[in-house]
Amino acid sequence: MDIISSKQNKSVRYIKSLQTKPRFRRRERKLILEGDRLIADALASRGKPDIILYLPGRADYEIIAQLQGRGCALQPVSEAVLQYVSDTQQAPGILAAFQLPRPPLPQRAERVMILDAVGEPGNLGAILRTAGAAGVDLAILAPGCVDPYNSKALRAGMGAHFRLPIVEASWPEIGAYCRDLSVYVAMPDASTRHTEVNWLESWGLIFGSEARGISKSALDLARRQISIPMMGAAESLNVAAAAAVILFEAQRQRLASAKR
Amino acid sequence: MDIISSKQNKSVRYIKSLQTKPRFRRRERKLILEGDRLIADALASRGKPDIILYLPGRADYEIIAQLQGRGCALQPVSEAVLQYVSDTQQAPGILAAFQLPRPPLPQRAERVMILDAVGEPGNLGAILRTAGAAGVDLAILAPGCVDPYNSKALRAGMGAHFRLPIVEASWPEIGAYCRDLSVYVAMPDASTRHTEVNWLESWGLIFGSEARGISKSALDLARRQISIPMMGAAESLNVAAAAAVILFEAQRQRLASAKR
Repeated sequence: MDIISSKQNKSVRYIKSLQTKPRFRRRERKLILEGDRLIADALASRGKPDIILYLPGRADYEIIAQLQGRGCALQPVSEAVLQYVSDTQQAPGILAAFQLPRPPLPQRAERVMILDAVGEPGNLGAILRTAGAAGVDLAILAPGCVDPYNSKALRAGMGAHFRLPIVEASWPEIGAYCRDLSVYVAMPDASTRHTEVNWLESWGLIFGSEARGISKSALDLARRQISIPMMGAAESLNVAAAAAVILFEAQRQRLASAKR
Repeated sequence: MDIISSKQNKSVRYIKSLQTKPRFRRRERKLILEGDRLIADALASRGKPDIILYLPGRADYEIIAQLQGRGCALQPVSEAVLQYVSDTQQAPGILAAFQLPRPPLPQRAERVMILDAVGEPGNLGAILRTAGAAGVDLAILAPGCVDPYNSKALRAGMGAHFRLPIVEASWPEIGAYCRDLSVYVAMPDASTRHTEVNWLESWGLIFGSEARGISKSALDLARRQISIPMMGAAESLNVAAAAAVILFEAQRQRLASAKR
């Protein structure tokens, strides 16, 4: 196949639009992954690639062979074209548009994480990755969260987007999702410790942004405010670390109870 | 005081050298903090400011007053000069060189965290912040770690650098620090769960980089490999999340035992 070296090529223009116009990307129900690690991860989690651009000689041989084996159409492009459509300073050898993943929603979600206005994409992606590892079965993004399919969030998510069901919802909708759950909200100074909660019951758990704090809607929905005890008054945790601590305390309780 | 608008000014040139030459910064035993939040945090943790540059009208009034109250010399500079010495795309209104913090080393360290070749400064700073909050009493940076006083690591650390003793050491030196400790290393597939460890004994705990894995020296030093159980084979945690989970499990055990 000829190497595409024109930025006017139809596929190149389409990818560039997806990359630079979040609203267009949403409407097309696509996301862009760069680099063989993220792409291999998405394939392993049943992601469906759509358009693949790669730089012959730079792209990883194994991933190319894997994509060809699946009958995907791979389009070789020049280095300049790849850099043109890339979101990174130094484009990796391969970039692909995938169909927006829709992991099946659980019949009855029992471990629901809700993010309230988390605006930093690296944090949001890291939290989704952690939530997947801790057995959360539904992640809800409340108003004010950054686009979870933005490139930085995808990089930090390491494939979690393809495995963990993610929905964006208004606060009344979130209330409906949480009807049968005990809902908690993580707050720096709450008197109930996160270890005092019975995480064996079905729960919803809200984390807010450090910068903006917790919204009134979140406080209204939560039955109880909880906090992580820290050593020293000046200490604090970023939201991704706080999420890791609480979600894995919940998992610890589940595993301990399963053993008994 | 006159507003400095020349990049040739002595203080400006000194700050620029600190900012751009890590080796010079090390030799001078200084670090640079940008923005009122980080500076206020450092002051609260007994940091000693050295040279302070600020943009009149943009810098936060409270922090200026606080610094003046301590008798610090504040040098007003032009916007162009502040941007010239800043490490950020949009310089905040204030920037200060601080003396390298040296929080007192514990007489006998009992909760020691060791980082093995953690190369991403945001991760390293976030881990230091988490370690401070979890009551680690000494953080050791093994060979291959990124400079902990780099601006991104300082931003993510949120003042932890001023409260948590941090030493850089070779593996033989680390062995000496850990002589009386049970040393563990976090590994993705170890069969011992992090919750099965008795964290009430004095411990050392090694975290490695995701990219490079754990070094042979770390494996040789550790008595036992431990891992965090995860839901689903494809799941994983980034090193900052893994550190949060394990360090707070250790803290949970301590607090639970103190209650008894």
